[in-house]
Amino acid sequence: MGITLKDVALKAGVSRSAVSRTFTEGASVSEKTRRKVQKAADELGYSPNALASSLTTGRTKLIGLVSNNFHNPIFLEVFDLFTRGLQERGLRPLLVNLTNETDPANSVRMLRQYSVDGVIVASSTLPPSFAKAFKDAGVPVVHSFGRHSSSPDVHVVGIDNVACGRMAARTLIDRGYARIHFLAGPESATSTQDRFTGFMEIAEREAEVTYSFASAYSFDAGRVEMAKLLMSEPAEAYFCGDDVLTIGAKSAIESAGLRVPDDIGLIGLNDMEMAAWANLDLTTIHQPIQQIISSSVDLIEAMLKDPNRYPEARLFPCHVVERGTLRPK
Amino acid sequence: MGITLKDVALKAGVSRSAVSRTFTEGASVSEKTRRKVQKAADELGYSPNALASSLTTGRTKLIGLVSNNFHNPIFLEVFDLFTRGLQERGLRPLLVNLTNETDPANSVRMLRQYSVDGVIVASSTLPPSFAKAFKDAGVPVVHSFGRHSSSPDVHVVGIDNVACGRMAARTLIDRGYARIHFLAGPESATSTQDRFTGFMEIAEREAEVTYSFASAYSFDAGRVEMAKLLMSEPAEAYFCGDDVLTIGAKSAIESAGLRVPDDIGLIGLNDMEMAAWANLDLTTIHQPIQQIISSSVDLIEAMLKDPNRYPEARLFPCHVVERGTLRPK
Repeated sequence: MGITLKDVALKAGVSRSAVSRTFTEGASVSEKTRRKVQKAADELGYSPNALASSLTTGRTKLIGLVSNNFHNPIFLEVFDLFTRGLQERGLRPLLVNLTNETDPANSVRMLRQYSVDGVIVASSTLPPSFAKAFKDAGVPVVHSFGRHSSSPDVHVVGIDNVACGRMAARTLIDRGYARIHFLAGPESATSTQDRFTGFMEIAEREAEVTYSFASAYSFDAGRVEMAKLLMSEPAEAYFCGDDVLTIGAKSAIESAGLRVPDDIGLIGLNDMEMAAWANLDLTTIHQPIQQIISSSVDLIEAMLKDPNRYPEARLFPCHVVERGTLRPK
Repeated sequence: MGITLKDVALKAGVSRSAVSRTFTEGASVSEKTRRKVQKAADELGYSPNALASSLTTGRTKLIGLVSNNFHNPIFLEVFDLFTRGLQERGLRPLLVNLTNETDPANSVRMLRQYSVDGVIVASSTLPPSFAKAFKDAGVPVVHSFGRHSSSPDVHVVGIDNVACGRMAARTLIDRGYARIHFLAGPESATSTQDRFTGFMEIAEREAEVTYSFASAYSFDAGRVEMAKLLMSEPAEAYFCGDDVLTIGAKSAIESAGLRVPDDIGLIGLNDMEMAAWANLDLTTIHQPIQQIISSSVDLIEAMLKDPNRYPEARLFPCHVVERGTLRPK
């Protein structure tokens, strides 16, 4: 500790200003000087202090990464991709856990205390008003996996959940399933509501359809809900709100001595890493997580440069991934 | 935005100093004044700026949470517990993703650039020298899930992996398994090395024992390694390096048309949430994750108060959780 810019300048045989410019993004410095400075800095163990630098720039490079679900394995992928994407751009992911916290006012206060430069809300369940609260407080925000809108208040990156609902219904009906059911996520989640709209639009016209809501996007919620459904006459196939609900539902079906897909068909949504595990082998609708996250990081970076940037909604297409939980066509 | 301490003072009808003291930890202010200030601040949407406050205190309240594995579902629990634990103490978890980054010098430089007050290394695979590098750079550090030592260089909180290895061997032998195998995690991981030592100590004396190493603590690594082992005469039971390896191994066994535990027994380690899922139902050694994390947060908080605090190693006991992947006693 205690190594200063002056020490580096002395060792490298350059001016203090040259050292400062080497470590200031966008500042002009010759390649030769930069190399000398970097070598001296490495040897001395010097690294520019972000706190000191944030004083002059007014920027902390901290991006709040807001999540409200730590029980769905997909979020491990989400955190992995976000942290790597932000790190690659020199931004710093501050993980904010909203478990047990749903009042946006508290979250906004918390994030402003944290002096973040921007916020990424990574949630398919929080309403658009949640991200909007950050915008209203003057904090640049991107809502990843948020509800699509043709006139978004903030940047939204995700999928068309209504279209996904239609795709699920169409897939089940095309396989000849006549009695189908939507085992949905929590009723309050925007993703649930939109998938419901799309699913019912097709299913009500072309099949015998029922539905129910799980209490959360979690294994236990899926298992409990399916166990309940199995107490009366089950449907022939289920669209589960997402992959982790599908895994829970599959577990309940197998515990009841029935087989998937021979007795009951299942289709999920997300195509998280685990969906491809051979012992799960879920037929599911692929959500392009990687593209959504990469695009979200692009947008938050753009917002930092231009906080008044006009909000846009970016949509990525989904497709069915054929695996082992639906009978073949 | 733009609401200042002065605005709050005017609205609350108190001095600026009273507002400042209300938002300064440990400063003296009457309960009546505090209430007036808080009310005015809430109404105006004012929150004290951590960046400004870190100028006067020299503290950022940022804690680097360092992880190098985003493919093991246990880390979702680890992130959940750490972020909540740190938030409850007013600390801010900065998630650092070391995927593709193993040089401690780079990590130290990165974390120092981030101006963190301290670092928690959450890894059972990184060697003690990794956490030591932070200490040497003057950064308070706690190594959670790290290798136990009777003379630790830094604070270490975790389990006795040698004892766990012994416990696994003892459990298998007590069930009457005569040919047993350690399907270990990556050979370079300290947890693998210690579990190996303990397992072999008992197994070599009392059973016919073999071993092999998976390339990572991941589903795929477990599945691939078990598929390879099934090509020749398999052992009667396997101690898998951790739960996610057990899940991969179980999947390979079932894909080969064999049954767990009827044909082959499995015991894992961790007892992560998923281990209790009815479709997995893993017999495993419980690692008290919650206690380890809570204790780690206590220690990093103590380090912030006293950076010269004498390093200590905290050990938590493990125990076998009986589920469905070993035949009954």
